[in-house]
Amino acid sequence: MPHILVTNDDGITAPGLLALTQAMRLIGQVTVLAPDHNWSASGHVKTLDRPLRVKEILLADGSPALTSDGAPSDCVALAILGLLPQSVDLVVSGINPNANLGHDVTYSGTVTAAMEAAIGGVPGIAVSLDTPEQHRSQPDYNAAARYARQIAESVLQNHLPDGVLLNINVPYLPVEQIKGIKLTRQGLRVYRDRLERRLDPRGRPYYWIGGESPTGVEEEGTDIGMLAQGFVSITPLHLDLTAYAALEKLNALGWT
Amino acid sequence: MPHILVTNDDGITAPGLLALTQAMRLIGQVTVLAPDHNWSASGHVKTLDRPLRVKEILLADGSPALTSDGAPSDCVALAILGLLPQSVDLVVSGINPNANLGHDVTYSGTVTAAMEAAIGGVPGIAVSLDTPEQHRSQPDYNAAARYARQIAESVLQNHLPDGVLLNINVPYLPVEQIKGIKLTRQGLRVYRDRLERRLDPRGRPYYWIGGESPTGVEEEGTDIGMLAQGFVSITPLHLDLTAYAALEKLNALGWT
Repeated sequence: MPHILVTNDDGITAPGLLALTQAMRLIGQVTVLAPDHNWSASGHVKTLDRPLRVKEILLADGSPALTSDGAPSDCVALAILGLLPQSVDLVVSGINPNANLGHDVTYSGTVTAAMEAAIGGVPGIAVSLDTPEQHRSQPDYNAAARYARQIAESVLQNHLPDGVLLNINVPYLPVEQIKGIKLTRQGLRVYRDRLERRLDPRGRPYYWIGGESPTGVEEEGTDIGMLAQGFVSITPLHLDLTAYAALEKLNALGWT
Repeated sequence: MPHILVTNDDGITAPGLLALTQAMRLIGQVTVLAPDHNWSASGHVKTLDRPLRVKEILLADGSPALTSDGAPSDCVALAILGLLPQSVDLVVSGINPNANLGHDVTYSGTVTAAMEAAIGGVPGIAVSLDTPEQHRSQPDYNAAARYARQIAESVLQNHLPDGVLLNINVPYLPVEQIKGIKLTRQGLRVYRDRLERRLDPRGRPYYWIGGESPTGVEEEGTDIGMLAQGFVSITPLHLDLTAYAALEKLNALGWT
């Protein structure tokens, strides 16, 4: 039986984590190690300035799990560095109740957990569901869990290229209405953040990063475009951020 | 006069921030907005679940600066989203007292501040100094500040390709011994993290992510390789993490 680590960025009590855990139990032996609070949009963290605690708890279905006061990527590091008696064959992160598309990937705790796996030499998969506003209070994770299981099973059989992780986004549709899977490239996210200045009860200013939810450019072949068309988008990501196309232009500037 | 935002991830009191600020004042009008505490290895953060505070303070040379309780990338977002009366022409982050090489870039607060600039449509530069262990208590930032100024000046004149940021690493050498500038690609970092289990005074376990400092593969043409040879390494980075080379291999798996 392969050993699968399940984590997330919404915290140990999130229903998306439970749905993913139950799906992974069908194909392997599962350890759950997830943060004890929400780390959304908290990025790729390695906690070096304080020690981490790990506690045993029970999930809502009564099954045992571990929780830590570290970030999602810390949970993966703890597991890979030897907290668990057995080695980890696959890390699956999610199910995030919002899509992680385009530039979201460096902010996303869900995706950076899978990055940490890739850096540690373990296949990593991030799973997110594109839940519309009106379903956010209680998303239906069935379709996303089903695709997570299919992809995880295939990755366990076929492995991933070295240093590659998968960023999976599932449309919010009943399974039978999903058009299938598309391998995609990262698209262009359009953020609509707006700074809101407010005054506290003592008249001192504070600032919210507010505004509306991000949109994106629905281009053919991208995560954003194919998800919008009703496909499950799988984007292979790596951690080489070199802008190769820019090297030539910058060479022309003659820096010495 | 161009308007330059200076930030960092070590916090507002860091000597590297002061050195960078003084260098940038020679070529533009500078606003300093930096975190009120250290955010090293804290990744790309967008703080959405709590409001941010901004305070006016004085740097060690008596010049005015702003500090926030947000992450480095939050400081950049605050500035770009309208906290400052004037628009920002360039974001420069650093000077970090340790190199940011290879896979460090998604963890690094110094680099993710420049990423936030690139996402916001502003040129971003991250500057790090490869300080050896024995000089970490009081690094000499002169050479790094000099190169930061040269590159910043050129970027202000020539701009950067859309969505590209620069990750600059300076060797710890006197200026006259530095061999020059090399444009590089991201190399392979080798982490040597090790989990240390300890018991607290009440006999309960806690865990440090410990081990030795990372090394790297000193390959020709990479940030790690050229820095080791005594060059200033400039790696253009972008936020498209798509593993294009993996798309074909994954296509062969026939996911539908």
